[in-house]
Amino acid sequence: GATPPVTTIPGTAVKTAERLRDKALHDDTGYRIVTSLTTEVGPRLAGSDADQRGRDWAIAKFKALGFDKVYTEPVTYPLWVRRSEHGAIVAPFPQALVLSALGYSAGTPKGGLTAQVVRFDSLDALKAAAPAAVKGKIVYIGYRMQRAKDGHDYGMGSAVRVTGPAIAASKGAAGYLLRSAGTDAHQRIAHTGVTDFEDPARAIPAAALSNPDADQLERILAMGKPVTVKLDLDCGVVGEYTGANVIGEITGRKYPDQVVAIGGHLDSWDPGTGAIDDGAGVAIAMAAGKLIGDLPRRPDRTIRVIAFANEEMGLWGGRAYAAKHADEVTKFQLGTESDFGAGPVWRMSASVKPGARDAIGQIAGVLAPLGVTYDVSKPGGGGSDLSQMHGKGMAALSLTQDGTHYFDWHHTSNDTLDKIDPKELAQNVAVYAAFSYMAAQADGDFGSATGAFAGDGAGE
Amino acid sequence: GATPPVTTIPGTAVKTAERLRDKALHDDTGYRIVTSLTTEVGPRLAGSDADQRGRDWAIAKFKALGFDKVYTEPVTYPLWVRRSEHGAIVAPFPQALVLSALGYSAGTPKGGLTAQVVRFDSLDALKAAAPAAVKGKIVYIGYRMQRAKDGHDYGMGSAVRVTGPAIAASKGAAGYLLRSAGTDAHQRIAHTGVTDFEDPARAIPAAALSNPDADQLERILAMGKPVTVKLDLDCGVVGEYTGANVIGEITGRKYPDQVVAIGGHLDSWDPGTGAIDDGAGVAIAMAAGKLIGDLPRRPDRTIRVIAFANEEMGLWGGRAYAAKHADEVTKFQLGTESDFGAGPVWRMSASVKPGARDAIGQIAGVLAPLGVTYDVSKPGGGGSDLSQMHGKGMAALSLTQDGTHYFDWHHTSNDTLDKIDPKELAQNVAVYAAFSYMAAQADGDFGSATGAFAGDGAGE
Ligand SMILES: [Zn+2]
Ligand SMILES: [Zn+2]
Ligand SMILES: [Zn+2]
Ligand SMILES: [Zn+2]
Repeated sequence: GATPPVTTIPGTAVKTAERLRDKALHDDTGYRIVTSLTTEVGPRLAGSDADQRGRDWAIAKFKALGFDKVYTEPVTYPLWVRRSEHGAIVAPFPQALVLSALGYSAGTPKGGLTAQVVRFDSLDALKAAAPAAVKGKIVYIGYRMQRAKDGHDYGMGSAVRVTGPAIAASKGAAGYLLRSAGTDAHQRIAHTGVTDFEDPARAIPAAALSNPDADQLERILAMGKPVTVKLDLDCGVVGEYTGANVIGEITGRKYPDQVVAIGGHLDSWDPGTGAIDDGAGVAIAMAAGKLIGDLPRRPDRTIRVIAFANEEMGLWGGRAYAAKHADEVTKFQLGTESDFGAGPVWRMSASVKPGARDAIGQIAGVLAPLGVTYDVSKPGGGGSDLSQMHGKGMAALSLTQDGTHYFDWHHTSNDTLDKIDPKELAQNVAVYAAFSYMAAQADGDFGSATGAFAGDGAGE
Repeated sequence: GATPPVTTIPGTAVKTAERLRDKALHDDTGYRIVTSLTTEVGPRLAGSDADQRGRDWAIAKFKALGFDKVYTEPVTYPLWVRRSEHGAIVAPFPQALVLSALGYSAGTPKGGLTAQVVRFDSLDALKAAAPAAVKGKIVYIGYRMQRAKDGHDYGMGSAVRVTGPAIAASKGAAGYLLRSAGTDAHQRIAHTGVTDFEDPARAIPAAALSNPDADQLERILAMGKPVTVKLDLDCGVVGEYTGANVIGEITGRKYPDQVVAIGGHLDSWDPGTGAIDDGAGVAIAMAAGKLIGDLPRRPDRTIRVIAFANEEMGLWGGRAYAAKHADEVTKFQLGTESDFGAGPVWRMSASVKPGARDAIGQIAGVLAPLGVTYDVSKPGGGGSDLSQMHGKGMAALSLTQDGTHYFDWHHTSNDTLDKIDPKELAQNVAVYAAFSYMAAQADGDFGSATGAFAGDGAGE
């Protein structure tokens, strides 16, 4: 039919959404899903044997949860493997270092790489450094992240990890070390994560030290004598791999080809079991879809739950998805992904057409009792992988979780099930179920159109 | 001279002890010592290259701190080495396990040991088990320690670790796993520690799982299907090693051959840098001796600071020390060792002759402003290594530290400098400096005599 200028959500849909919300709060479907994934599959490094087991698990789980349609879409990416990793201070005070190789890190030569450490106070200082100061050395940067609800220190923390190695490499560095981009100042556990060594030919060995190991290295560097470190990293890109996004749908009754897109990413870093990153996101979206599927009748539009492939090494699943579906962006009613742990959602914001602001307000009204505040001044970015569909023009929300402790465990062996509070997870499911259902039942759209939100600042 | 029936501490000595106490509270000698040891030597597994570096460090540090006499006494023990350790669940859900081989653990055969896991609810249940239920399997016990100021759960926690492996071995078990004896319920870090596999011929592979890994294993076991685990431990006893206790003395002016004995142990487990266990103890005793040495004149009796060898694998330094010095036990005025972390001392108790209770009361009076309560109902055990001299008849104190968080980090990679609060460490130095000085200046003795305190219950 003709699209009305102002989108609204019928009162009956609001009531159903409120019941869905209240039911989800006392439902353990999400927690059972993330327990199953992290226990029965465990770590799911993209391209590993466990990656395949993760897809098998997701297909089986969607089916067991009663989704109407379950399918996969291939995603191809470079295959990076981690076999082993060791580090040590060689001189002046020999001792082991706890570290983790970064995604796309090169391996070290057989027998390891031994070189002097040169410290820079910041990424800017490294950028400004003369190549002669860096050449042949192991660059170290010690940026310290502090805890914050919105995790804002990860902006710099991730920049030091993602972009630092290539900058060091471009100046001739032999290797790269950083203080982990993590807020667990006292845990001897390293935080891995990706670098922008897209071209393996440019990659050098790069690793993150645990916070206490960074303290130790800095203490020794501060003594002023040359410090030599040995890195022994057996890792690297070994070819190409084709995995898949796994998708489950609760098929819309009226407009089956119009979709509300939610999801999480199925892959995880290998040291942990990927509970908060991003088993939680997968579980939240799957459980929301399942609860909607349990209603007496199917929603007007399709609820599409996407378990993305290889988010961790550069949004591969999200980019493949957006490339494949860009030309049908108008069929994406509204979307967002959960990928910031399992803490409660406390804020929502949206990038939608002006005529859909009232409907967003209606959604906000249903979410408010969950502790969610609607910030009209911010855009909605769609989360990690779905940011790519938003970039194509999909109307999107941001549902911001409390990330105070997210970076204590993020990308470490400590990302395990015990970090998830079942009640907080259920709050997330309530948020996703309620908003998804309301978007599916809306009388009108949210403004998805090719390039519609290019200027909203969500990508910044 | 003739020993008076009632021992007292002269008023001038009490005043000097009060000044020592107050000075120590604002002195950072102890923190500088433990920083130096944990940074410049780092981990100090008994018999390792770092063990020798630790002795060199201790000798140099005693000299730098102005001790009058610095010497070593040899200690010989089995040399156990840890080369590498890996574990994994093989079936039904393959994934890596974070674990640490236990002291004196046997290594696994080349290619690893793969066997089914059999769980017992307690050490008693394992003791009661029929060998047929255990034979060829990997025994698992999942005792959970809770935090406590006095760390009392370590009684059972250490029993499961120390005695469990040999019980399992005696019933034909192929291997042994326990939930770490640690109170860090959410840290993916394993707690190592010794077993009673004194005879390597009886040893089987034995390791501790981190708490979250134990959770995971238990979750999978609870599903009721057979669970297979692979252990790959490259470790074992490879011979004998002779290290040494390192001893520094502030020589007594009046009675140089009468000693107040304090100390800590110089060795540490290898995953951490041995900050709380027991760099702190070494630092507390060294700093106390140093502050006494800084007084305008030497104390009446000698302050002997002992940095013991290989406490961790069975009190080897303490036992060697007691064997060598048993026949001169009457020359040990009073003694105790610090080996429970770096938390503040909150309680003191003593095993002394009745006529020395008043003097202990005087010491308690000086320590009271530090927050130390004198419990007259408890014995004084002398701490870990010096418990052996106490067993020979040395009058001894117990200076009980707040161990609420001690078992969060004990015997793990997390035992690092950042876990020590400099102010709390200084409180310990104040306690040791004040009591040691008062004992050295006492008019009379504390009742040390061969076998004097055999029935005091300190060893229980
Ligand atoms: Zn993620
Ligand atoms: Zn991530
Ligand atoms: Zn100890
Ligand atoms: Zn210990």
